[in-house]
Amino acid sequence: MPAMTIKLFEGRTKEQKRELAEAITRETCRVLKCSPESVDIVYEDVKKENWATAGVLWADKSA
Amino acid sequence: MPAMTIKLFEGRTKEQKRELAEAITRETCRVLKCSPESVDIVYEDVKKENWATAGVLWADKSA
Amino acid sequence: MPAMTIKLFEGRTKEQKRELAEAITRETCRVLKCSPESVDIVYEDVKKENWATAGVLWADKSA
Amino acid sequence: MPAMTIKLFEGRTKEQKRELAEAITRETCRVLKCSPESVDIVYEDVKKENWATAGVLWADKSA
Amino acid sequence: MPAMTIKLFEGRTKEQKRELAEAITRETCRVLKCSPESVDIVYEDVKKENWATAGVLWADKSA
Amino acid sequence: MPAMTIKLFEGRTKEQKRELAEAITRETCRVLKCSPESVDIVYEDVKKENWATAGVLWADKSA
Repeated sequence: MPAMTIKLFEGRTKEQKRELAEAITRETCRVLKCSPESVDIVYEDVKKENWATAGVLWADKSA
Repeated sequence: MPAMTIKLFEGRTKEQKRELAEAITRETCRVLKCSPESVDIVYEDVKKENWATAGVLWADKSA
Repeated sequence: MPAMTIKLFEGRTKEQKRELAEAITRETCRVLKCSPESVDIVYEDVKKENWATAGVLWADKSA
Repeated sequence: MPAMTIKLFEGRTKEQKRELAEAITRETCRVLKCSPESVDIVYEDVKKENWATAGVLWADKSA
Repeated sequence: MPAMTIKLFEGRTKEQKRELAEAITRETCRVLKCSPESVDIVYEDVKKENWATAGVLWADKSA
Repeated sequence: MPAMTIKLFEGRTKEQKRELAEAITRETCRVLKCSPESVDIVYEDVKKENWATAGVLWADKSA
């Protein structure tokens, strides 16, 4: 508490996930006045064929 | 907004995901009077060993 | 299986939820060749102060 | 994409949600090189009787 | 980790949530060999008009 | 209904998932007085580089 899930397109590097988790945790603690240990973040890598906006798969938009 | 997640057994084809995203987006816009651009759909492919109903994994039911 | 969650702004009527569930279930069964009984849909009503796009709460955009 | 859900204890103010959405969106765009418009955040307010850690409801821990 | 979300119809009592969280945490630790502190459970109370199976809202089934 | 999602680190065996699904379903039915058929559980295997606590990826903690 807080617990976050972050869906992003697959292909993000471990370095980006590391840096983003660090930054989001820092900002969350600053705004909500909570301890870092209470912040949990789970990334979900999503394939472009598994995400649609406006009824079109992103795999098709990129084509 | 609206944002949907759809969990389904893995093995569905890209064609099925494409057709379903299109149909769901169309029906959603018709009923909710929203624009297609506002409809986001994320599929989650679930392995049969990761889904249980009535306490039994689907991987075991299929056996 | 499939199991869906649909986040939408609060204020949608029960009639809209009823009609949308019906339509989405029908389309899902048609495309995935599954039985209606296997389709589960959960709506989540989201307040405008609980949804942000581009870093701005929708409660503030409407203002 | 990215799309985030953030579960937090109820009682956070609209000001905190506003400030946090702004900060997380800014950091996400910086690290992932994406546009602010692509960042969606949904907060879920959770009652203390609906969250348990180590098998104990937070409503009981506070007691 | 593990982190669970449990959607159930609204109306469950705090006593039931307390007892279930305790039992699930105990069983999880037994099977996965993890410590109780690592088990997080969040309940989501769902209204009957927000859950549909086979295309019918549970609010309508009860009618 | 109830419907559960359980995020756990990847590497859990099918035997553990089978045993845990069985135990959780049994306890849920006992406490909530519901039928086993109504209990749905979905596991989500999470890589250690996709889970952060206190701003640090578990992939880095293990290092």
